[in-house]
Amino acid sequence: MEKNIDILQNWLKEQGAEVAFITDPENIAYFTGYHSDPHERVLGLAVFAKTEPFLFTPGLEVEDVKNSDWKHDAYGYSDIENPWEIIVTEITKRIPTVKKFAIEKSHMSVDRFEILSKYLTDATFISIEEKIQMIRLIKTSEELAILKEAALLADYAVQVGVDEIAEGKTEAEIVAKIEYEMKKKGVTAMSFSTMVLTGTNGALPHGTPGDTKIKKGDLVLFDLGVVHKGYCSDITRTVAYGEISAEQEKIYNTALKAQLAAIEKVKAGVPAKEVDLTARNIIKDAGYGDYFPHRLGHGLGASVHEFPSITETNEMALQENMVFTIEPGIYVPGVAGVRIEDDIVVTKDGYEILTEFPKELTYVK
Amino acid sequence: MEKNIDILQNWLKEQGAEVAFITDPENIAYFTGYHSDPHERVLGLAVFAKTEPFLFTPGLEVEDVKNSDWKHDAYGYSDIENPWEIIVTEITKRIPTVKKFAIEKSHMSVDRFEILSKYLTDATFISIEEKIQMIRLIKTSEELAILKEAALLADYAVQVGVDEIAEGKTEAEIVAKIEYEMKKKGVTAMSFSTMVLTGTNGALPHGTPGDTKIKKGDLVLFDLGVVHKGYCSDITRTVAYGEISAEQEKIYNTALKAQLAAIEKVKAGVPAKEVDLTARNIIKDAGYGDYFPHRLGHGLGASVHEFPSITETNEMALQENMVFTIEPGIYVPGVAGVRIEDDIVVTKDGYEILTEFPKELTYVK
Repeated sequence: MEKNIDILQNWLKEQGAEVAFITDPENIAYFTGYHSDPHERVLGLAVFAKTEPFLFTPGLEVEDVKNSDWKHDAYGYSDIENPWEIIVTEITKRIPTVKKFAIEKSHMSVDRFEILSKYLTDATFISIEEKIQMIRLIKTSEELAILKEAALLADYAVQVGVDEIAEGKTEAEIVAKIEYEMKKKGVTAMSFSTMVLTGTNGALPHGTPGDTKIKKGDLVLFDLGVVHKGYCSDITRTVAYGEISAEQEKIYNTALKAQLAAIEKVKAGVPAKEVDLTARNIIKDAGYGDYFPHRLGHGLGASVHEFPSITETNEMALQENMVFTIEPGIYVPGVAGVRIEDDIVVTKDGYEILTEFPKELTYVK
Repeated sequence: MEKNIDILQNWLKEQGAEVAFITDPENIAYFTGYHSDPHERVLGLAVFAKTEPFLFTPGLEVEDVKNSDWKHDAYGYSDIENPWEIIVTEITKRIPTVKKFAIEKSHMSVDRFEILSKYLTDATFISIEEKIQMIRLIKTSEELAILKEAALLADYAVQVGVDEIAEGKTEAEIVAKIEYEMKKKGVTAMSFSTMVLTGTNGALPHGTPGDTKIKKGDLVLFDLGVVHKGYCSDITRTVAYGEISAEQEKIYNTALKAQLAAIEKVKAGVPAKEVDLTARNIIKDAGYGDYFPHRLGHGLGASVHEFPSITETNEMALQENMVFTIEPGIYVPGVAGVRIEDDIVVTKDGYEILTEFPKELTYVK
């Protein structure tokens, strides 16, 4: 469903810009309700300060657009047409001489920018993405309801994975089972490649699941999420298979303590960095400071990584209805990796946790 | 495994450029053997005309790089460091004043380009991607062997899907089963979202599998591929479930005739457009010209879409060991959609077909 295009139009007026051409498929999906991955082809949304927007898609998709909720104009191009010629023609039909043109500078490539600049010689180009990020930053109640559903689907996926744990089963087999059950439930895409890492593999924060077999004494880490009605969830849980060592347990309990304390810190008005530092200091004090090499969390919404970024330097004050992850991790090479992650909504007086899978250490027998 | 970096170095020398900074993860994987998806973080490969290359990754991944085949330098950055400062520092340690800097203009974003330009005020920027595309265009015998394996895995995936066809089963259920079986076989990723479309859904060339149930009289379209050792396959087959109409059969036979004739045209020296036009004219002559709205095929390798593009206007002469798809489609809205796609290698005297799943119309009972 189309939403918030009027906010973009007002922003264009304020900036004295006539038009924006938005090319990030996630932003296009956010504003139009039309989801598409154009690969190397061109997909764009033209928004005008004073007239109706239009969608521009690969010719193959024009039928899809007609079947979607999009009620404004839509144009396509074939594989032998020059898409930019059509785009510029449609724009200049509406605005004969563009003076100020807004683009997403972190999405548009240099070569496309060079082409546009050649067509629109009178235009200066400004960046619209900070504005888009700020619009997307604060979730509506409708978005929050969808994010809750997405989080519960992620909980279920972790349960599927935990139920699959058995001696000799590989990480890749468990990934396959999780994604199979999710697709059977109607989930069309995971937020990112499902991660199941066992034993010391868990100490690679961006490891890839493979042929490693689960064995007694392992900590098994699940990091996964689903895309549900265009919104993402993201959860991490680490569980024990059989008896684990005192050191593994200490690592787990430190990560959990840090995670719980960071969540307690969340409230409208608190700077993001205080949330990060709360967890970071607990991990440092336990002697694992060098083993927590990433930010505490990231915003979550139509993208699996968006604003706000929860780092130790981000001064941004949290606001009601921001949504982000809190996911401290401790990765001791050769020993173990633990990460615990929830999806959190900022409320006026505190927080709401969307993901519900238990966090006290689960022992799988 | 690292390969062909020396070709890039020679090219830099020819161009009078001191350094290239490559940022497309697929190109980085191609040259270094190191596969990674950095999301919004920065991943790059610096190649110098006259000294050793280095990899630059998110700090999280430095351990992964050390465990990979990459034997040159690697640097990381944490979430609170400025990656470009580190990259520029490392580059200027090697080349104090860069005069000519090569980038992938279709991959680098405008904002990153603006940052680099500010640091490297003496540099002019040239595009390296045409060179990279030309290097990747001609496959080695090692790459061809991997592409063959990837194609056979895709054949198997189609067989899994065909075996799942049954009255009332949904498209999404069959997608789930296919991907599950592939992951169990050790496939870590599909080349793209697996497509299973039944009945009139098949007439949307970029449709999304959903809740539609398969019923007798449907044509069922499978379009899928796997990523295997870093290389992609891509196959489409359309099969009949139960009795189909004379018109469905005519559409199928026209697409098949066009596909076979186009493949027969393939040979080193033939312009790409002749292959496209061979199929296109057969479809036109059968009265379906308006229902074949896309190019005949696309190159295939480390990317699922690369050079050469098989369009009706591409004059490029085919060369030995190019690999591409041939995939004519006929999409009659409300009636049926058929596409038949193979992965083809150009040989000196003709072609080799990598995908082997039968193409005479399969009737599932």
